[in-house]
Amino acid sequence: MSIITIERKVLEKNDEVARKAREEFAKRRMLAINIVSSPGSGKTSILERMLEYFNDAVAVGVIEGDVQTDLDAQRIAKYDVPVVQVVTNGMCHLEAKFVYDSLSAFDGKDIRLLIIENVGNLVCPSNYDLGEEFKVVVLSTTEGDDKPLKYPAMFRNASVLLINKIDLLPYVNCNVDSMIKNALTVNPKLKIFQLSCTNVQGIAEWCGWLEKQLI
Amino acid sequence: MSIITIERKVLEKNDEVARKAREEFAKRRMLAINIVSSPGSGKTSILERMLEYFNDAVAVGVIEGDVQTDLDAQRIAKYDVPVVQVVTNGMCHLEAKFVYDSLSAFDGKDIRLLIIENVGNLVCPSNYDLGEEFKVVVLSTTEGDDKPLKYPAMFRNASVLLINKIDLLPYVNCNVDSMIKNALTVNPKLKIFQLSCTNVQGIAEWCGWLEKQLI
Repeated sequence: MSIITIERKVLEKNDEVARKAREEFAKRRMLAINIVSSPGSGKTSILERMLEYFNDAVAVGVIEGDVQTDLDAQRIAKYDVPVVQVVTNGMCHLEAKFVYDSLSAFDGKDIRLLIIENVGNLVCPSNYDLGEEFKVVVLSTTEGDDKPLKYPAMFRNASVLLINKIDLLPYVNCNVDSMIKNALTVNPKLKIFQLSCTNVQGIAEWCGWLEKQLI
Repeated sequence: MSIITIERKVLEKNDEVARKAREEFAKRRMLAINIVSSPGSGKTSILERMLEYFNDAVAVGVIEGDVQTDLDAQRIAKYDVPVVQVVTNGMCHLEAKFVYDSLSAFDGKDIRLLIIENVGNLVCPSNYDLGEEFKVVVLSTTEGDDKPLKYPAMFRNASVLLINKIDLLPYVNCNVDSMIKNALTVNPKLKIFQLSCTNVQGIAEWCGWLEKQLI
């Protein structure tokens, strides 16, 4: 059996579990989003700002994916929302079964928005459907405006691009117009928001849009 | 055949080719280093500063690994050094065979230092020996000081840590002392340099040390 056949089988199996997770989300009227990015782009910081924005207005649940440690779940636990930590033990992406198996933690809590923070990796998670409604890719200004062209699969498979750390623009060699142009070249349908977690610029716009997507 | 068995076979096959590459490096008296990091940590910018430092004093060859595009090789080509672009077509890491198959491009050029820039990914490339003398992991201050704990395999398998973008420290939430402490917790033997590609701070120290490792 070739490696490609094995990989296809892994993805097919994952897609099957993702379908079950998607059915479960619909049954629970839960909007699930899958946040992906490089390590250090600011996924957890954005999540913190989102939890502050939604506060008691929207019931949010969180699944934290990490290669090692529960540092992110510790950060999120302060916000008094249900959070499940998935440690992948070296695996470079989340798979649908991790998400599906975590759902019982949200039983009876009437969660309306499930935020899944994937492992920090701009390549591998693009292939793995977690049953989410859509993927949200985060790219920070410090990473450079060429990244959508260099890592196209992730930008092609996402519906939303959050350009983070725009407060650092005066200090870094990044042209946001080029970044947006490169992202739209790869995926013309991307919905794009510009954010700063430091001065909360753009957070209300992004969260307001997301709130309208709730089911 | 299980997936774990397949993965082990892939790694064993890779190690075998890495051994051949390592023998070839020794025969050519070429020091090969494998630079790894997240996307956007500044691997290519560091490479540019290194090429400026070594200029005509050390014959350098470059292998550029990218998921897609030859943007990095285009940047490096300006420095008039031999460069081979490897496009992995979606694969999340370089394997030894890419490196071994590229070596003929350096025939007759008496290269003393071969710099391999891996795909931007802080997880997967840690498992793949390319035959290099050692791995150099780049972590930028904008990524946060917790990353060595969250992605330990890469820091454990590297010999050198380059902390990049230290010029941005006044603007980001990063404690370099904590970053160093976290890195040394994971790997007490790490040799650490602090760099800025913008104001070239630390470049001479890192390149001077590297020059002493030439064989």
